[in-house]
Amino acid sequence: MPSPRMSKPNWRLKSIVTLALTLLTSSQSILIVWSKRGGKYEYSVTTANFLVEALKCALSLAALSRIWQNEGVTEDNRLSTTFDEVKVYPIPALLYLIKNLLQYYIFQYVDAPAYQILKNLNIISTGVLYRIILKRKLSEIQWAAFVLLCAGCTTAQLNPSSDHVLQTPFQGWLMAIVMALLSGFAGVYTEAIIKKRPSRNINVQNFWLYVFGMVFNLIAMCVQDFDAVMNKGFFYGYSFITLCMILNHALSGIAVSMVMKYADNIVKVYSTSVAMLLTAVVSVFLFQFNLSLAFFLGSTVVSVSVYLHSVGKPQK
Amino acid sequence: MPSPRMSKPNWRLKSIVTLALTLLTSSQSILIVWSKRGGKYEYSVTTANFLVEALKCALSLAALSRIWQNEGVTEDNRLSTTFDEVKVYPIPALLYLIKNLLQYYIFQYVDAPAYQILKNLNIISTGVLYRIILKRKLSEIQWAAFVLLCAGCTTAQLNPSSDHVLQTPFQGWLMAIVMALLSGFAGVYTEAIIKKRPSRNINVQNFWLYVFGMVFNLIAMCVQDFDAVMNKGFFYGYSFITLCMILNHALSGIAVSMVMKYADNIVKVYSTSVAMLLTAVVSVFLFQFNLSLAFFLGSTVVSVSVYLHSVGKPQK
Repeated sequence: MPSPRMSKPNWRLKSIVTLALTLLTSSQSILIVWSKRGGKYEYSVTTANFLVEALKCALSLAALSRIWQNEGVTEDNRLSTTFDEVKVYPIPALLYLIKNLLQYYIFQYVDAPAYQILKNLNIISTGVLYRIILKRKLSEIQWAAFVLLCAGCTTAQLNPSSDHVLQTPFQGWLMAIVMALLSGFAGVYTEAIIKKRPSRNINVQNFWLYVFGMVFNLIAMCVQDFDAVMNKGFFYGYSFITLCMILNHALSGIAVSMVMKYADNIVKVYSTSVAMLLTAVVSVFLFQFNLSLAFFLGSTVVSVSVYLHSVGKPQK
Repeated sequence: MPSPRMSKPNWRLKSIVTLALTLLTSSQSILIVWSKRGGKYEYSVTTANFLVEALKCALSLAALSRIWQNEGVTEDNRLSTTFDEVKVYPIPALLYLIKNLLQYYIFQYVDAPAYQILKNLNIISTGVLYRIILKRKLSEIQWAAFVLLCAGCTTAQLNPSSDHVLQTPFQGWLMAIVMALLSGFAGVYTEAIIKKRPSRNINVQNFWLYVFGMVFNLIAMCVQDFDAVMNKGFFYGYSFITLCMILNHALSGIAVSMVMKYADNIVKVYSTSVAMLLTAVVSVFLFQFNLSLAFFLGSTVVSVSVYLHSVGKPQK
């Protein structure tokens, strides 16, 4: 719904990038299910992550070269930058790296299904950090909607064995909370970086974000998979579906940046939550999944939350 | 929260009767669990239902006789009535009777746990009939809150076997919906009767409601348990806890009437839903029940729903 102060083209852009993120995220999960059906991951995940960042860089450069051709090089779309502008760009990539490293340790305390449930803490941490760091206001009804989003997403993922998440040991809870904070902080910080220079071309901002992403993922690859890559080769175990997943991740990553530029972290969280529900519904047709009663109830709560978020805009 | 047009004593009365209904309803469920622990029901349920109605009648008369002593007999508190006033009073009792008879048949299609889940349709039917019959308005946010109340209550009651409710045959769904409509209609109709004459003393209105309740329950007793009562006696199988339950049901029934008089059906639904959650929490301490993750999520959704209902009052 357009807010009165938002111009029409900006509102259209916001809708398009939000829709793109939703569709890309849902197809992402479907690709993961599809690839898992063929057996375990054969390829090394760190090489794929590195390729995702490299592809995002390449796509940003391609977009920029078209813009340079059409509009010429300006102050806002030139690639060169100052240390003052670029110094903050490594931070989100670094935060994600730390989070991914923690991910290896949390599985000592919780199993994968419990981790899926705990990941919904991201929703709360994003909301809280969005308020504290970006100092943006949500109305009381939007806060209520955000709590519902978290409860609804968790409900939709409930299964008969979910209750054992309540037996998660203290260290598991602590790590889950730290990971949620890291992930929320990385998202909110990225938004702060991108929005700090509103006139700066998003492709330049993306380029610098992704360059540091490449660097950190290269480090992770060397630390974790150096031997495997050296012995078996970089592309060992790659298949057509691996390439689809890399392309999808790259496009989703760009969509996330766009949402940060033209919308915000709250829209991103809603978008990925709705994608989670879409994935489940599509999986019913693709993989003969059964939808549970909990899924229906959770989806209802998420839908009401989306509605409340849009009607509950703070009074200007 | 007091609405500006509501006077302060009325708001206090509304809060007191709502609190009373919540506490009585939660202790009701606890008494049921307690009585079940001692084995199956030994007494005939129809005799107990009849006694509940009789006790409510007696309590209404007792309250009236005090009022007559203090204020004298007036137009508003006299027991005698016109056919025009009294002709509608049998209708709620008749509707409840039909609903209770249907209850015997629905168990051919659904089992008891699935029936517990389906009973939450009452929430929706009450809301819809409240809107259609009483023509009272809920704001859009209050409607959203009402959907959440239904989803939250159902979520809180989920257990690993709940999914089979989705396999309920068509006849089961149909009967569940009809029962929800009957129960919702009886509630809304009672409110309409009681509110039609706002100055009429509530104890007189209750007396007439309960007289017809006695009559219909007497019929049900004769139809279903005539032989048992004749052979074993009216009070066969009664225990101290049976008497507690009868007293509790009678007081809850009076509290429901009071809520209809000073508040409305929506408040009643919220009150009994919150009571359901209270019961579960109290049962943890009394009977070492375990709370499930679904219970926490459902309670969160119900709490947000209560909050939204109160902040979402229609603009006057």
